[in-house]
Amino acid sequence: MLRAFTPPFTASGRSSLVAPPPWHYAGWLLNVEFDCDPTHGAALVPPALGRPTGRGCLHFAHWQACGNGGAELLDPIYAQYRETIVVLELARDGGPPAGYCPFIWVDQDISLLRGWLQGWPKKMGSTWLTLSLPLEHPAAAPLRAGTRLGASLSVKDRRLVEARLTLTGAPGERLGFLARPTIGAVGWADLTQPQDCPQPQFVRADIADVVAPQWWAAEGQITSFAHPVEELELLGELRATRASAGWAGLTVRGALGLSSAR
Amino acid sequence: MLRAFTPPFTASGRSSLVAPPPWHYAGWLLNVEFDCDPTHGAALVPPALGRPTGRGCLHFAHWQACGNGGAELLDPIYAQYRETIVVLELARDGGPPAGYCPFIWVDQDISLLRGWLQGWPKKMGSTWLTLSLPLEHPAAAPLRAGTRLGASLSVKDRRLVEARLTLTGAPGERLGFLARPTIGAVGWADLTQPQDCPQPQFVRADIADVVAPQWWAAEGQITSFAHPVEELELLGELRATRASAGWAGLTVRGALGLSSAR
Amino acid sequence: MLRAFTPPFTASGRSSLVAPPPWHYAGWLLNVEFDCDPTHGAALVPPALGRPTGRGCLHFAHWQACGNGGAELLDPIYAQYRETIVVLELARDGGPPAGYCPFIWVDQDISLLRGWLQGWPKKMGSTWLTLSLPLEHPAAAPLRAGTRLGASLSVKDRRLVEARLTLTGAPGERLGFLARPTIGAVGWADLTQPQDCPQPQFVRADIADVVAPQWWAAEGQITSFAHPVEELELLGELRATRASAGWAGLTVRGALGLSSAR
Amino acid sequence: MLRAFTPPFTASGRSSLVAPPPWHYAGWLLNVEFDCDPTHGAALVPPALGRPTGRGCLHFAHWQACGNGGAELLDPIYAQYRETIVVLELARDGGPPAGYCPFIWVDQDISLLRGWLQGWPKKMGSTWLTLSLPLEHPAAAPLRAGTRLGASLSVKDRRLVEARLTLTGAPGERLGFLARPTIGAVGWADLTQPQDCPQPQFVRADIADVVAPQWWAAEGQITSFAHPVEELELLGELRATRASAGWAGLTVRGALGLSSAR
Repeated sequence: MLRAFTPPFTASGRSSLVAPPPWHYAGWLLNVEFDCDPTHGAALVPPALGRPTGRGCLHFAHWQACGNGGAELLDPIYAQYRETIVVLELARDGGPPAGYCPFIWVDQDISLLRGWLQGWPKKMGSTWLTLSLPLEHPAAAPLRAGTRLGASLSVKDRRLVEARLTLTGAPGERLGFLARPTIGAVGWADLTQPQDCPQPQFVRADIADVVAPQWWAAEGQITSFAHPVEELELLGELRATRASAGWAGLTVRGALGLSSAR
Repeated sequence: MLRAFTPPFTASGRSSLVAPPPWHYAGWLLNVEFDCDPTHGAALVPPALGRPTGRGCLHFAHWQACGNGGAELLDPIYAQYRETIVVLELARDGGPPAGYCPFIWVDQDISLLRGWLQGWPKKMGSTWLTLSLPLEHPAAAPLRAGTRLGASLSVKDRRLVEARLTLTGAPGERLGFLARPTIGAVGWADLTQPQDCPQPQFVRADIADVVAPQWWAAEGQITSFAHPVEELELLGELRATRASAGWAGLTVRGALGLSSAR
Repeated sequence: MLRAFTPPFTASGRSSLVAPPPWHYAGWLLNVEFDCDPTHGAALVPPALGRPTGRGCLHFAHWQACGNGGAELLDPIYAQYRETIVVLELARDGGPPAGYCPFIWVDQDISLLRGWLQGWPKKMGSTWLTLSLPLEHPAAAPLRAGTRLGASLSVKDRRLVEARLTLTGAPGERLGFLARPTIGAVGWADLTQPQDCPQPQFVRADIADVVAPQWWAAEGQITSFAHPVEELELLGELRATRASAGWAGLTVRGALGLSSAR
Repeated sequence: MLRAFTPPFTASGRSSLVAPPPWHYAGWLLNVEFDCDPTHGAALVPPALGRPTGRGCLHFAHWQACGNGGAELLDPIYAQYRETIVVLELARDGGPPAGYCPFIWVDQDISLLRGWLQGWPKKMGSTWLTLSLPLEHPAAAPLRAGTRLGASLSVKDRRLVEARLTLTGAPGERLGFLARPTIGAVGWADLTQPQDCPQPQFVRADIADVVAPQWWAAEGQITSFAHPVEELELLGELRATRASAGWAGLTVRGALGLSSAR
């Protein structure tokens, strides 16, 4: 009798890399919305999902995640990770705009697999982002007008994208995956058919308990760099529009197939 | 038209985490065969696959891997990784013994996914192993009688298993996954059915071009440690029997379903 | 004309690992005060400094640091690090109690060298600590009675010490290096006299701009582990007394020699 | 009675980051000699040491190091590290050319401090280099004409320099720090005088037991990148001349002051 949700497939499932949902997440986020040439995005979105509008969002996040009971919070190497998320807005016939995640990089294995199960194509990357601490001190980057925050992502020892934010002092808005449902593409290669590419299935995470009491508006700036493997550069120049910083929590209970998701 | 073997699913597939096989591997390995109580292994092996014999092998490997053309060897952050492998020997009705991998830990994302596609349940872990250098020098650990070599694995900042080898000067033997076919368990959780555990499918890697011209025999010693998540301790005491060190190369071309594998 | 404060010694000093002070620090800290057998501490404190009282404190910190101007906050890989600090209380003849840092482990080079210049004997180690986020969410560990927080330190892939805190809901106290001046031991081996051990000089950091508006009291628990190299175990059992969590900022402007420090 | 060679200053010295020499090193190296504009190097060399000739060498090394007894080889997280070394050739009045190391990056703390004590200005960096394995296999990069090898260095998540080598099949030469004595600059900032820069002292490591039985010649190529902190770009274009690959071992017994070194 096997009770393992993911490998390794032991009888107890204790060592499974990922336990079944619910998965609770809470984190600090820097979000920079951007405009790009919509023709660029087409190579990054499965055609069945719709057409990129030319708007997207870059998120840098420092997450803390746990299951029911919160045991991971007592051994936080199991709870914490940082990631960089790219979300593109899709125009969808007969429906409201949705988001799609073409790229995402994380620094931890549990989150990597949870992402794939949701159709978020996680790879390993090194994300850094300034934290805003509730102190008046030169190193604290407190939440008030004029404070500057930075973030960076490096993939395989090459910097891929950076952002800088300057808080305006005004309230901010929900952006990117925090503003609309995001569709994921799930597909597993079958090594017994090693020359076939999988046809991804599309799902939307079943999210509950979203808390994000306040966002702080910012002026943002994005710098991206060429990379021999990553394809972020297909989006061309990323022209920052709106930006925000703040804390958010949410819970993933599972996923819905796309027909439900539409 | 999607040509991505694994996420992300872009039109070009250039940034896919894993490209289709062939996958070429060459590495330095420390191998320690062990005996353990066979009843312990039952919780770690899918019942359909057979019964653990009580024999297994611990491998510590420093790999270099690439596709055809070898581009990764020019940017070796894409090629190199270290891993620790546990293989158990299975008695199989009507067939020769086979191996099964209940646990494996690696330090790199590309290898993690290649492993999952072959049914090797990789998680992240930190492996260290002494290299044997072709020099007569106190730090070189050259290949001759009396040289001592060490290896260790840490998972989530806790040491899980260590090994020490002393070369005997005699030729060594092929051990563990190098001595017999190893069966993998492939299964993907479906987040739209979040309370169901996947039924794994069993495959055997389709391996070609094995080169391992020489193994150096060693006396081995294994020390394992309790861990709050990992289940290696279910195997009880690991009593080292034979051990060896050496280089090996092999190429994975795909996988065979288990009916072919039997 | 050389203007480098630390290696490398270039003309501009731009690439020096550490720039001259001031060094501004702001961070999130978990602090657990402990009692231990005072005889144990004597092997860890230079005799000239005084006698351990048998009281000490373990700090886990997630820091953000920068110089004047705060450029590091825009490229936070230069600003952020995590560390674990052990402080022992010393009885000092003719003076108030002082602290001494026998051990400290950090995960970043800039902080490592800044520490040595202050007489804090930093080595590399991997520290994790739960963050308290201002959200009501199962993964947020908010600052209220009953919230549980964890921390861990691993050195060379072996877990060395862990702590767990449960917030009481009451205000907390300043503990450890936050409660009293801490003396550091600075000494550099001279490789032209390779068999001599340096005689350390004793300094106290010149600290200004301390901000720590509020501490949250907690019940704490410490578990430490044997280690083949680290000597924390010389302190014997660490019996947690008071504990607290909170944010603190401070600025180091330089250091004072011990005669000033007394 | 203090017996600690480096911090922490405990009675036993067991946990000192660095033990007294001898320090035994054995490793695999990729070496690429280069020409650059000699005027560029002046900002990187203390004037007292001489004048850069415009020739230098870039070394990428995968080291294994230990003290007498070799205990580190049994727990190789204490023995192994990778580093990237830049050496410049100096014209010295009245003496043969010497080398000077303006920059070096390593991935481990023990080596960092051993470097500083020898006047090698180590900072943390991530080095990767292809290993040559004694196998005929596509992933093995064996030592024969036509084999291609790569190396890279990243500092604070930005790639700083890369090299590619193609083995010619001919014997190679000793290059860089392997060809001539290299002078180091040792200097420690004094935090009680926080606005003063130290005047470095110059030393040369006292090296014995050099073994490097064979070098394999290569055609090399270097690509370097701008960096906001590192100053490698002051050397301008690095035009690869000779290159080689191979194993080397050496033992450092201490250091000689420069008057001896001249």
